[in-house]
Amino acid sequence: MTDDNKTDRPGDGADNSQIKRLADELVASLGPDDRLQHVNQAFLPRRVEVIRFIELLRQVVFPGFFDEQSVTPENTHTHLAGLFSQIHAVLYDQTLQSLCYKKNIRRAEVVAGRAGDECQDHARTLTNRFLDTIPELRRLLALDVRAAFEGDPAAVSTDEAIFSYPGIDAIFIYRAANQLHGLGVPLIPRIMTEYAHNQTGVDIHPGATIGESFFIDHGTGVVVGETTTIGKNVKIYQGVTLGALSTKGGQSWRGMKRHPTIEDNVTIYPGATILGGETVIGEGCVINGGVFLTQSVKPGHTVRIDHPEPKLRPQRKPRSKQNQQQPSEN
Amino acid sequence: MTDDNKTDRPGDGADNSQIKRLADELVASLGPDDRLQHVNQAFLPRRVEVIRFIELLRQVVFPGFFDEQSVTPENTHTHLAGLFSQIHAVLYDQTLQSLCYKKNIRRAEVVAGRAGDECQDHARTLTNRFLDTIPELRRLLALDVRAAFEGDPAAVSTDEAIFSYPGIDAIFIYRAANQLHGLGVPLIPRIMTEYAHNQTGVDIHPGATIGESFFIDHGTGVVVGETTTIGKNVKIYQGVTLGALSTKGGQSWRGMKRHPTIEDNVTIYPGATILGGETVIGEGCVINGGVFLTQSVKPGHTVRIDHPEPKLRPQRKPRSKQNQQQPSEN
Amino acid sequence: MTDDNKTDRPGDGADNSQIKRLADELVASLGPDDRLQHVNQAFLPRRVEVIRFIELLRQVVFPGFFDEQSVTPENTHTHLAGLFSQIHAVLYDQTLQSLCYKKNIRRAEVVAGRAGDECQDHARTLTNRFLDTIPELRRLLALDVRAAFEGDPAAVSTDEAIFSYPGIDAIFIYRAANQLHGLGVPLIPRIMTEYAHNQTGVDIHPGATIGESFFIDHGTGVVVGETTTIGKNVKIYQGVTLGALSTKGGQSWRGMKRHPTIEDNVTIYPGATILGGETVIGEGCVINGGVFLTQSVKPGHTVRIDHPEPKLRPQRKPRSKQNQQQPSEN
Repeated sequence: MTDDNKTDRPGDGADNSQIKRLADELVASLGPDDRLQHVNQAFLPRRVEVIRFIELLRQVVFPGFFDEQSVTPENTHTHLAGLFSQIHAVLYDQTLQSLCYKKNIRRAEVVAGRAGDECQDHARTLTNRFLDTIPELRRLLALDVRAAFEGDPAAVSTDEAIFSYPGIDAIFIYRAANQLHGLGVPLIPRIMTEYAHNQTGVDIHPGATIGESFFIDHGTGVVVGETTTIGKNVKIYQGVTLGALSTKGGQSWRGMKRHPTIEDNVTIYPGATILGGETVIGEGCVINGGVFLTQSVKPGHTVRIDHPEPKLRPQRKPRSKQNQQQPSEN
Repeated sequence: MTDDNKTDRPGDGADNSQIKRLADELVASLGPDDRLQHVNQAFLPRRVEVIRFIELLRQVVFPGFFDEQSVTPENTHTHLAGLFSQIHAVLYDQTLQSLCYKKNIRRAEVVAGRAGDECQDHARTLTNRFLDTIPELRRLLALDVRAAFEGDPAAVSTDEAIFSYPGIDAIFIYRAANQLHGLGVPLIPRIMTEYAHNQTGVDIHPGATIGESFFIDHGTGVVVGETTTIGKNVKIYQGVTLGALSTKGGQSWRGMKRHPTIEDNVTIYPGATILGGETVIGEGCVINGGVFLTQSVKPGHTVRIDHPEPKLRPQRKPRSKQNQQQPSEN
Repeated sequence: MTDDNKTDRPGDGADNSQIKRLADELVASLGPDDRLQHVNQAFLPRRVEVIRFIELLRQVVFPGFFDEQSVTPENTHTHLAGLFSQIHAVLYDQTLQSLCYKKNIRRAEVVAGRAGDECQDHARTLTNRFLDTIPELRRLLALDVRAAFEGDPAAVSTDEAIFSYPGIDAIFIYRAANQLHGLGVPLIPRIMTEYAHNQTGVDIHPGATIGESFFIDHGTGVVVGETTTIGKNVKIYQGVTLGALSTKGGQSWRGMKRHPTIEDNVTIYPGATILGGETVIGEGCVINGGVFLTQSVKPGHTVRIDHPEPKLRPQRKPRSKQNQQQPSEN
């Protein structure tokens, strides 16, 4: 509603007694239930800052593609050093928050200087370690980009893949989150991969292990579970699930290998589902679309299913006049 | 393109005669076709303000998680009261727009003070009623968050679920939109759930009815239709469709019960499809992945399908040399 | 982290020697690998500007729906002319970048006035040509909006469809991108459709050909490949793939017709998969949910599959006590 068509807005006045009552009610509810609030209890990372970290990191691993500023031979070094410095600052802050949160350190204690030193040292160590992995991250992503280009007949250049492929963005964010997950940084890795999930429809748990030259085409609906292991040169398509056999056990299953192992050079076509921690898809296998697997496959096999026979029926009348009660699966 | 590499930009000058001609053409087309413009005809809600409403509401129902400002015991009450006040203002404005829109009140009449009073009263009533439902919304979401944590072995804390689970975000937005839908607020509820759909890949119509402790894992591709009824403690996974048997009738089907009923304690695994307004899935049922159902299931049953037998064929040659014409289902 | 709870932040100081070393390492890696950087090599379009172009264009084709400013009969012409002018400026800039990029013109040469004139002329021509297609774009979108409303019993108005349907947004962006693709503008069309993919879960290649009155319901998981041809009045649902039989050939398949042809008045229900460049779905066909097709269907047929028989097993014990090892397809 723009200023010029705002009426006199009696609504703005609101009902102060209602608002006071609602605030009272919510404050009262904060006590008993510790699941929905963090009032003075602990630090928390901020999602918007985690996203800023992702954006800064993207500029470092794909120099020149996503920068506000033009990158030239003269300014490259300064530009990259500046980005590294910003990444350090943002990641340190968010890691510190996450570590304080995990140790349940109260804010008042940190402000009073009675706690948090240990977290600060730890946050600094983890941040420095992460920064040291960035050149390797960049090397891995170059291989992923090449795999995307070589695997997709619709790709016109590797630049197009970097600019626009959701698979590349999902893999970039996963690879960075997986490093932080490996270093033991709490919360942040999952916030990162769920941000990627939001953006791309690809849901990779930061705990999954994925080798070089990984390509996800189209991507929407892909799920890769926490304890999945994927080798080199693997290619998967939209709607592929690498999942657990059952999650009925809920929290009692934590930490167990629940998701499959995919060896090198495997291709998994759209909508295939592979389940279970003991399921191993051997080197070089091709899993065709719609296949449902809960057992291992030896290396070098193509796995397919007989799709249900399509049954054709001629339409006797114009479609709009037909009985509308028949199943049509919307 | 940064300033320093802008050339002299002859493009900016554009061709004024072309622009005038195009504007003429568009203005001329506004008359006959009333589907694509709202020039002085009616008020419309603004999507960006509806999203701001969602963000403010998220801070109230999950205090301390998404706030710009730190929430402490000292400032909690003031902070929440401030949020309620902002929520009231934004929701009142957008509701007023939507009501004027629905009544097709012309802007000129409102500006001239000849119309809109009734809408203002109505908007105020609806806004106040919605605010009164917020404590209950918060109670329901606490149960949803607990269901998410308890149902997912990969979850490390309820905080992680609040911060990052798309299912939690989709349910939060649905529950708020459903309240507004029930109050008869036009347009806004659907804008809200389609925003959630954009963010999470979960498409829940605001008219659906969903009980306590609902959990959606992974979420991408979930569709829950307008007349669906879901009981308590229900858990669904990615790619589940709760849909209509047919929509061939289009608008002639409006208002009928077209979507299924899911009773308490049901689990529906990935990719299952359940269709039809007379289909009832009884209490405690487990519907396995890929099941396609258009009939009811009595309480206490597990429903599965025999997945098509995977057929293995050894690869005689290296994959890259094979005949590339065989179906591989990309 | 808000200012008031920032600690003394030893992390900000970072380790300058680490940062210098990392910048050195990255600069050194820029030489050998030309896939991951564009340092002084070429111009590149900017994704954020391409998105701005989409947002401006949306205001022109749906006047009054997404504008910051109220549109009235008095200001319509001026308002639209202003939008056309902005669209011209943004599109010209980004097209110029893309053309220089494609010709691999070095930035230094353009700045020095030694190159780029040809690209500037070409960018101006392409921008003008695109602008001339906007009235036709608007006409096509009016038909798409009507198809969405008429085809969906849950739709309450065409306005709701414009405001909130992901299918409408995906089609709008595709139709604009397809025009630019046809004009030969590099990179930008794919950035546009992948932005739509991010927002809606609908992945339409800008090279696809799609007739009037196209409707995509729910949308998540839809894939429409580069060489797909779709006729008039076609309606598709979530999870439909119009794809290639195989992409094992990778780049060797570029330019071939790899995706199906869908004739007029066809409806394709959720999760159906239609593959192959020689596959033609004839006029008026209805393809039911889950159908998998790699062969042509003559006009006027309904195609369905026998879904696998659901098998029911009563649960002897409360669900939580059951053996948790059975496959449950998560």
